[in-house]
Amino acid sequence: MLIKTPTKGMNDYLPSEAALRQYVKNVIIDEYSRAGFSLIETPAVEHIENLTGKNGGDNEKLIFKIMKRGEELARAEEKGEELCDSGLRYDLTVPLARYFAKNSAKLPQPFLAMQIGNVWRADRPQKGRFRQFTQCDIDILGDASEIAEITLISSTAGVLNRLGFSGFTVRINDRRLLRLTALGCGLPEEEFDNIFIILDKMDKIGIEGVRSELLEAGYYAPAVKRYIAVYTGCDDADLFEFASASGDEGIKVAEGLSKIMKAASVAAAGGCSIKFDPTLVRGMSYYTGTIFEIKMDGYGYSVGGGGRYDEMIGLFCGVRTPACGFSLGFERIVGALSDSGFVVPSQGEKTAFLADRDLPEDVLMKMYADASALRAEGGTVAVCGRMKNTSFQIDRLKAEGFTAFRIYGRDSVKEI
Amino acid sequence: MLIKTPTKGMNDYLPSEAALRQYVKNVIIDEYSRAGFSLIETPAVEHIENLTGKNGGDNEKLIFKIMKRGEELARAEEKGEELCDSGLRYDLTVPLARYFAKNSAKLPQPFLAMQIGNVWRADRPQKGRFRQFTQCDIDILGDASEIAEITLISSTAGVLNRLGFSGFTVRINDRRLLRLTALGCGLPEEEFDNIFIILDKMDKIGIEGVRSELLEAGYYAPAVKRYIAVYTGCDDADLFEFASASGDEGIKVAEGLSKIMKAASVAAAGGCSIKFDPTLVRGMSYYTGTIFEIKMDGYGYSVGGGGRYDEMIGLFCGVRTPACGFSLGFERIVGALSDSGFVVPSQGEKTAFLADRDLPEDVLMKMYADASALRAEGGTVAVCGRMKNTSFQIDRLKAEGFTAFRIYGRDSVKEI
Repeated sequence: MLIKTPTKGMNDYLPSEAALRQYVKNVIIDEYSRAGFSLIETPAVEHIENLTGKNGGDNEKLIFKIMKRGEELARAEEKGEELCDSGLRYDLTVPLARYFAKNSAKLPQPFLAMQIGNVWRADRPQKGRFRQFTQCDIDILGDASEIAEITLISSTAGVLNRLGFSGFTVRINDRRLLRLTALGCGLPEEEFDNIFIILDKMDKIGIEGVRSELLEAGYYAPAVKRYIAVYTGCDDADLFEFASASGDEGIKVAEGLSKIMKAASVAAAGGCSIKFDPTLVRGMSYYTGTIFEIKMDGYGYSVGGGGRYDEMIGLFCGVRTPACGFSLGFERIVGALSDSGFVVPSQGEKTAFLADRDLPEDVLMKMYADASALRAEGGTVAVCGRMKNTSFQIDRLKAEGFTAFRIYGRDSVKEI
Repeated sequence: MLIKTPTKGMNDYLPSEAALRQYVKNVIIDEYSRAGFSLIETPAVEHIENLTGKNGGDNEKLIFKIMKRGEELARAEEKGEELCDSGLRYDLTVPLARYFAKNSAKLPQPFLAMQIGNVWRADRPQKGRFRQFTQCDIDILGDASEIAEITLISSTAGVLNRLGFSGFTVRINDRRLLRLTALGCGLPEEEFDNIFIILDKMDKIGIEGVRSELLEAGYYAPAVKRYIAVYTGCDDADLFEFASASGDEGIKVAEGLSKIMKAASVAAAGGCSIKFDPTLVRGMSYYTGTIFEIKMDGYGYSVGGGGRYDEMIGLFCGVRTPACGFSLGFERIVGALSDSGFVVPSQGEKTAFLADRDLPEDVLMKMYADASALRAEGGTVAVCGRMKNTSFQIDRLKAEGFTAFRIYGRDSVKEI
């Protein structure tokens, strides 16, 4: 008797769950393909050096490390050296950067990449957070223009529309606007990462909470006062009014954002509501420009987000490469669909043929010929042995969406 | 600058390769679904105890082991205990057995399971053999009748037919027939695993090679002589003639095989050639009955195989559960399609819109509206920034299957 439960924090998916996941994957791949994104595949296992290159933020603390093998392991043990040589990827961005560095000579320019695959994080398991989960990323590498942002946002809105979601909003901001604003208030540039982390808590701790934390952190009180004044009641801030406080540079950023907002909302199949949110920060410090996040009405969490990261790809390939990416929250989308009682559209009627034991050859042949005929009409036909407790067997099959049943016996075929 | 190459023995897939893989996956899933198989998903990471439970054969030597983390790792290091607590799965059979043990109360009976996912083996990398590769397994759990074999073989032949393969043959045998034959010749039962491994080499070393190896291994010469006589010129052995040498028990096995062969060949959509092969062995010792393998004309290797393993599932769940499975060689199928110059059927025309820098809003809006309109007609439209070297950019896009191009400028739209 071995261990029946999956490893901690990881999931087995029952047939109905797996079918929903597969359906969502196919919609995502199809929709992004139509917008010109190319599917790529990278290995789950990545060099430990690449995973610990400081592009993973806190995720670098959560790596599942893989041990060296054979002689290399023996040597490492003997010499007291590092026992691991690789690890499971914690995101799809590091593998993408490596992939692009290796293969860019064979890829279109700019490269519209799509990845959908598992990632692993040794996080504390909790509701809705798993140690193995599927990520779905689209990235445009090599395009410095706002076309990248518009294409990413509109395609992603198209996916959500096609999955039947309504009432989602893309919130958008720009890292440069965050920086200009903080600079303008006289806050210290070397502390921006910390300051933005505090600002990012606004929707949880409120403006007063942000003020207290900034003061507690010891920032110059008059600067904090100015900063808080800027962000007070900024929920419905007008983009240009907000940005103009940062002068010409701010206005230039605002012009870019405005274009992206207008074009993306018309470009999205099925439409898309986009809102400027000056408090949007996004966690990763590698963002350099536009940042965005999608929230769905009725859900506190975001179902996707991303932004421009013009510096990171160059770390791998040695050539500065503008980049912008969007990560869609696959698990959250599946969860929201599941919560809403969504049923995967079925392909034709599902019929089960239940065969008695030791059927003569001619009955066997007829049964399988019947199955082929029904399948040729577009139906699904499962052929399997009949169990003693047939009504129990049929109940289980009904739970899997089977609606028609036939029992093949020695001398008769019975519809049920 | 970080490491650009993938980890040893693992692959990056370029867009055209990834598209082919995705296409084959979809055909497999669709075809098996229509035959009533339910997709399931299990984690890539498995308890180390389950991976080393002696069901993995030689694969257990090839495990990528994952290190414990945090305090547990520190404790293990201090006490000199095992540093790993889990590993990457080397097949889909162990996870299936665990999954079934955990979830059988929620599953149909019998359970027609389909898994398609990555597995990892720290093998010596060589042409066509990778350290991460995709497996595709179907299994029927809880059905002791020949219906399981017929359904597995015919569905798999259906997949190959739909992918356009012709000229493949299913070779079939039965472990019981192998055992009865060896017993009848007077070979020692406790040595059967070794004897079958030697017999399995027949197509490589010939009948004389098998004779020498058996004699070298020290088996009783008259028994070896009888054994060799049985397998000499058995390429076209008649099933019943061959089996009758093992008496009534042999004939009973032959009757089962005969039924399976006849029914599976009519049951397979597009037909299927099935041949009795008394020398077929299959590597894993957990097989208990029917075994089968698919070979394609022109390829020396098998593209799939499986058999009945009625004892293994019980090791996990404590309840004896008849089982039969088929593993389709995903990587080999993709390789064979790729060798044959197979092109993934495209969805509509692929058009690229190349946008000049700093387009005014009205042009941007029109461009994206045009893209939506073309997509609504079923086409693919990539919208991206125009590069300085436009003709080079277009050449790259052509290589990705794009056939139409438009340049959106400030004042004009140009078709190319």
